[in-house]
Amino acid sequence: MTKGRIFSGMQPSGKFHMGNYQVLNNWIQLQEEYDCFYSIVDWHALTSSYEDTSLLPDRVLNMALDWFSAGLDPEKNVIFVQSHVKEHAELHLLLSMITPLSWLERVPTYKDKLQQLADMGKEINTYGFLGYPELQTADIILYKANAVPVAEDQIPHLELAREVIRRFAHLYRPVFPEPQAILSPLLPGVDGRKMSKSYGNEIPYAAEPEDLKTRVRMMVTDPQRVKKTDPGDPDVCTIYTFHKIFSANEHIQIADNCRQAGIGCVDCKKRLAEQMIATLSDVHSRRKDLATKPNKVMEYLAYGAERARKVAAATMQEVREAMNLSY
Amino acid sequence: MTKGRIFSGMQPSGKFHMGNYQVLNNWIQLQEEYDCFYSIVDWHALTSSYEDTSLLPDRVLNMALDWFSAGLDPEKNVIFVQSHVKEHAELHLLLSMITPLSWLERVPTYKDKLQQLADMGKEINTYGFLGYPELQTADIILYKANAVPVAEDQIPHLELAREVIRRFAHLYRPVFPEPQAILSPLLPGVDGRKMSKSYGNEIPYAAEPEDLKTRVRMMVTDPQRVKKTDPGDPDVCTIYTFHKIFSANEHIQIADNCRQAGIGCVDCKKRLAEQMIATLSDVHSRRKDLATKPNKVMEYLAYGAERARKVAAATMQEVREAMNLSY
Repeated sequence: MTKGRIFSGMQPSGKFHMGNYQVLNNWIQLQEEYDCFYSIVDWHALTSSYEDTSLLPDRVLNMALDWFSAGLDPEKNVIFVQSHVKEHAELHLLLSMITPLSWLERVPTYKDKLQQLADMGKEINTYGFLGYPELQTADIILYKANAVPVAEDQIPHLELAREVIRRFAHLYRPVFPEPQAILSPLLPGVDGRKMSKSYGNEIPYAAEPEDLKTRVRMMVTDPQRVKKTDPGDPDVCTIYTFHKIFSANEHIQIADNCRQAGIGCVDCKKRLAEQMIATLSDVHSRRKDLATKPNKVMEYLAYGAERARKVAAATMQEVREAMNLSY
Repeated sequence: MTKGRIFSGMQPSGKFHMGNYQVLNNWIQLQEEYDCFYSIVDWHALTSSYEDTSLLPDRVLNMALDWFSAGLDPEKNVIFVQSHVKEHAELHLLLSMITPLSWLERVPTYKDKLQQLADMGKEINTYGFLGYPELQTADIILYKANAVPVAEDQIPHLELAREVIRRFAHLYRPVFPEPQAILSPLLPGVDGRKMSKSYGNEIPYAAEPEDLKTRVRMMVTDPQRVKKTDPGDPDVCTIYTFHKIFSANEHIQIADNCRQAGIGCVDCKKRLAEQMIATLSDVHSRRKDLATKPNKVMEYLAYGAERARKVAAATMQEVREAMNLSY
């Protein structure tokens, strides 16, 4: 018996960095405790990048390579491409009929992201972009997920999903559980801000050892610690946030050393870089190997889609019956 | 070789009256010349009636009974229920990604209908209602229809469809032909205004002979013709509009008689009522007979859906390839 069912997805945006790896890492832990559905949400990628889709097939394949080589198990989890399961579109359409326009207009990320993309010269004020969180709702509830690993900024989307679920239950009958958030902290960028390619502060997932060392050296540490003999505060240090992920066996010791000025920032960075290189070299070599077998990767995804469709079809049957659309 | 392909649909709103029969009549003529796809668009019905869907299964069946008994041939045409062909939802979702929100907000019927329904105490300002013309676009182009029989008030929707088609061709590559309108005039109500249950001026399709006579007697004639000896003008007479449909063999003679004051309005109405009763009694008896075989009706619809799906699947394959979503 698992703790419940999880749905989560990632857009194949072609921008896979260490922040995404951290999310993956979290998923890999969850795969032991939950019944997990993980999806490469290619339809979502269209909401902000519909003009040029030529790289999409490559990005989907690369995302799958990232996932499988990092250790996401295609047997333990249901791993699939969103557009392979048409029920996402059907449920999205049905939910659109009961969702007030104002609910979508008021999602905080909506106007923020419109503005952000407009500043980059991108015009994405489309009907589909407005419906983005509605499609997310459909993704989650199609599998009756009761938990969703999300970052802080996705909380309003999950709240919308719950509202739509309640409205559905009120109008027809309860079909979907209300999903709870499993908050997953994100790795910061080298400057301590959110890791993002647009800030230029990211650590690429595929970074070579020398590049990795350089980027780790750039990381912001405790600003109060001026000299090596000053005691440091690991809780405000970017390096330490990374140690917690990559130096699982010794991060407590590292924190103690830092607080007692037993280790300097330069050495501390070196140790982190070594740990990251060691961890990632395994992942990278698995990735290189798997990249020579794209057919195998697509087979994994086809197998996942087949399993996802079974669950999705059963849910849609219930939805149609509840809405009197079953004839 | 036919003149081309037609798509048209009707919402199973449960309000089938003589105005709808006239549309059907038009479809029946088109079935001889075109390759026709006619759909009971149940998903569209949800845009304005999502709160109570309990009558929907009955309305779908009844609409199918109306169609088949009026003479719409399930072999000559592809007749199906929209929600049986999931590709409508998939194409709708994909089109939503490329359609500017403002295009939908500016469709003239959008604000009009919102206001009209708000006046009736109905709140339908949903995401799905805004997307109504987008779903219509998907309906039409999924079958690559190049002609659509529409009433005047649907012209802006067809214009939207053409704009979306052009945008798709511009962004990816041309896949869809631009559909042309086949304007079908609507029968007026007994008061000469548009026939509508909300005006109380409709002639129910299932009206019994006595009821039919009463409603025909109420019809507005040429207001300039006060006495029977005055010559009349059939072109402004509601009765004459109906004669053109129901008295096909003699309506020219009737018009001449009217202009020469050779026939009075009372007699003219009597003749119309007789013609309508004769025409409809055949239809009604076929309907009564078919209503005893609901399974047969559903089989016809399943057969239509199967044929529709084949065409829809082929189009979607092309769409996915054009959008680089084919993996």
